[in-house]
Amino acid sequence: MLFRQLFDQDTWTYTYLIADEETKEAALVDPVLEKVERDLQLIRELGLKLVYCIETHVHADHITGTGKLKELTGCKGVVPEKAKVECADIYLKDGEVLKVGSVEIKAIYTPGHTDCHFAYLVNGTHLLTGDALFIRGCGRTDFQSGDAGQLYDSITQKLFTLPDSTLVYPGHDYRGHTVSTIGEEKQYNPRLANKTREEFIDIMNNLNLPNPAKIMEAIPANRQCGNVAAAAV
Amino acid sequence: MLFRQLFDQDTWTYTYLIADEETKEAALVDPVLEKVERDLQLIRELGLKLVYCIETHVHADHITGTGKLKELTGCKGVVPEKAKVECADIYLKDGEVLKVGSVEIKAIYTPGHTDCHFAYLVNGTHLLTGDALFIRGCGRTDFQSGDAGQLYDSITQKLFTLPDSTLVYPGHDYRGHTVSTIGEEKQYNPRLANKTREEFIDIMNNLNLPNPAKIMEAIPANRQCGNVAAAAV
Repeated sequence: MLFRQLFDQDTWTYTYLIADEETKEAALVDPVLEKVERDLQLIRELGLKLVYCIETHVHADHITGTGKLKELTGCKGVVPEKAKVECADIYLKDGEVLKVGSVEIKAIYTPGHTDCHFAYLVNGTHLLTGDALFIRGCGRTDFQSGDAGQLYDSITQKLFTLPDSTLVYPGHDYRGHTVSTIGEEKQYNPRLANKTREEFIDIMNNLNLPNPAKIMEAIPANRQCGNVAAAAV
Repeated sequence: MLFRQLFDQDTWTYTYLIADEETKEAALVDPVLEKVERDLQLIRELGLKLVYCIETHVHADHITGTGKLKELTGCKGVVPEKAKVECADIYLKDGEVLKVGSVEIKAIYTPGHTDCHFAYLVNGTHLLTGDALFIRGCGRTDFQSGDAGQLYDSITQKLFTLPDSTLVYPGHDYRGHTVSTIGEEKQYNPRLANKTREEFIDIMNNLNLPNPAKIMEAIPANRQCGNVAAAAV
């Protein structure tokens, strides 16, 4: 498997490029509109064929590159079942496995940050946690049908039950970390380690975060696969 | 081997944490002063003992965390032989191998960005290229005894002769890339692929880059292992 982590400095977003090195089929997870040219250049240079753009959820902090990538490459857009996205080609079910060549990407329903959030377990070893679990943190739960109790359940019952050695690759990082493990997060995530569901909900309800700068444009645009013009109609 | 890439968003600098998972001995390569607390927390959480802080060169764009880390942990500062650093504990020779537990870190003299620059090959697979080779780019050569011709020779004769599969981990990235390979850089680095020595020198002599914001404080401070007060005397 080829696995590349890519960073968007403006929105602190990680995009992941995953490919089968034999068949050259590739998928991008959570591409960012402003980084489409960078990602396509890398895909071309590595001799890959982009077959899927996969979203962990409808993002509020950046506009997805999926629409533009579909237009430029003919790849398919993949989103969680029930996500309010009208332009996707594949709506994944919880537990469903998407194959990129021989690489297996398993969808794990992990609501809480939004009500239609999926994490993706790649080949059983690399867990893309989206905005559910961050390195020593987690996604916020104060908009887009977020629910702190639901996020606690998603993380503790679905993600923390994976093997301790599972690599954690988050959707964002704000302190310069790139990777962690389930074992580390169980032990050291300050919002979750030794915290009850009630304590977690209390932490999440008192974060008092400002809204993401792009929220008003990002959510409608992302429901149209990042097509800003269609979102404005 | 435990291998972690860490990013400083302010100066686009990558720091690397390398450790032997059995003996728990660890080294940091190119730590950043403002990120010392983050790095130490990670080292503590992973149950590691910091034995070395290793510099690829005397940095002009950020102040090293080595001095503060030496003070806080008693680790040893490691720099390239002949680097104008007065406070280091170990001066590595070209080709010398530093052991961190059973992890082997081999010094490769790669001047050109500065006249005392080392790349480090970790366990034969992970190449820390410092400011010699970047992903689809390279370090500048217009100050600190930089020399474009020398950098061309360092990259083409020392780094590009390693196996194509060698992982390239640079000292900086400005576009959100995290890792590449020697094979990719040989083929796609726009400053080096199919470029003669003369063409490379011409490219480097016409970059017209502004000086790094922190150059006036960083170089004297880094010659004192990041001790800003000592540098000001």
